[in-house]
Amino acid sequence: MMGADVKVSELVAETGVPLATIKYYLREGMLMPGEATSATQANYGDDHVRRVRLIRSLSEVAGLPLQKVKVVLDLIDNPGGSLFDALGRAVAALPPHLDDAEPPYPLAQAAIDELGQLYDPRYAAVAQLERALEAVADAGIPMTPERLAVYGEHVRAMAEFDIGRMPSADPAEALGYAVLGTALYEPVIAALRRLAHQDIAARRLAASETAVRGE
Amino acid sequence: MMGADVKVSELVAETGVPLATIKYYLREGMLMPGEATSATQANYGDDHVRRVRLIRSLSEVAGLPLQKVKVVLDLIDNPGGSLFDALGRAVAALPPHLDDAEPPYPLAQAAIDELGQLYDPRYAAVAQLERALEAVADAGIPMTPERLAVYGEHVRAMAEFDIGRMPSADPAEALGYAVLGTALYEPVIAALRRLAHQDIAARRLAASETAVRGE
Repeated sequence: MMGADVKVSELVAETGVPLATIKYYLREGMLMPGEATSATQANYGDDHVRRVRLIRSLSEVAGLPLQKVKVVLDLIDNPGGSLFDALGRAVAALPPHLDDAEPPYPLAQAAIDELGQLYDPRYAAVAQLERALEAVADAGIPMTPERLAVYGEHVRAMAEFDIGRMPSADPAEALGYAVLGTALYEPVIAALRRLAHQDIAARRLAASETAVRGE
Repeated sequence: MMGADVKVSELVAETGVPLATIKYYLREGMLMPGEATSATQANYGDDHVRRVRLIRSLSEVAGLPLQKVKVVLDLIDNPGGSLFDALGRAVAALPPHLDDAEPPYPLAQAAIDELGQLYDPRYAAVAQLERALEAVADAGIPMTPERLAVYGEHVRAMAEFDIGRMPSADPAEALGYAVLGTALYEPVIAALRRLAHQDIAARRLAASETAVRGE
């Protein structure tokens, strides 16, 4: 963190984001102007550092196109009346962008009903679930009631933890946490699942392969 | 399923894969030749249908480049001595392909140690976990011991289910299930998590927003 207001060159040094990129963020209105100290100079503070880091995380780490970064920033700046609606719109800015998807979503609806959750086809994740369930069916390993029950229970437990840790005092912080936490923890969960597969398979298969060899 | 051996045109009709693509699979040795009935004709059976569907699932649904599809097919055709090693190599053919990743992987190693699992930097998912943990730290929501404990427990429970359902009699089936089940259920889990977030947030936030409005 910067102690006091600094020049734009120090904002570059602090965030590691190139000057041309910061100027672009300023031109596009994604980064609020600094406090002007002369016709050609302005000072920037900790708010600017946080904002530049958020933009970089959304675009470079979460992989959002800049147009979708703007959607999230607009919601953070103007969350409006309902934080729940703002959260839904912000998370809908994340990939995958299934712009050609349209209801009905029969596989997703059946799964959501089975889990006892509210089905609302306007939620972006409903189309995403439909597409994903079509893909597993096409590949010959369709979702089963048993698998849905197991996944549903354990995914919900992780989601309860996530929501329990969401900053609640400040809507802007809640929105940043929701978008980044959703997008960036998906690869963490995927990697942990692959490693758990490997650990479990090692224990089971190594044991049975040893048994086959008569060791 | 086709009842009896059929011509290549029926293989096209049965799988929905264009003739030019099937010819390409044959030329590249990814699809085994049919049984020749004349100099220009051959018959194809159910094995061919299954193989074409597997190639299509790996390339179009799981998104593997054809070079990686060949790696998986080679392992299916020649799983070698240890099914565990073949499983590891097959799953390593999945994206993300972090070809420039090199040990050490300090964040991943600490997490894997904490979970009590075997750390082996040659597992492709270790580099993937390291990259994902770097990303959440960069975004200001680093992994915490509490989150790791919750995620680790619930991801492992899902992974136990997956491994328990793996076909065990036939190594080729086990490999296809492992690769497709790993890749194609990741988007299912991601969508279920987003929907669980929305369901939990709706219950909590809708209740508190109603309370704020004095309703």
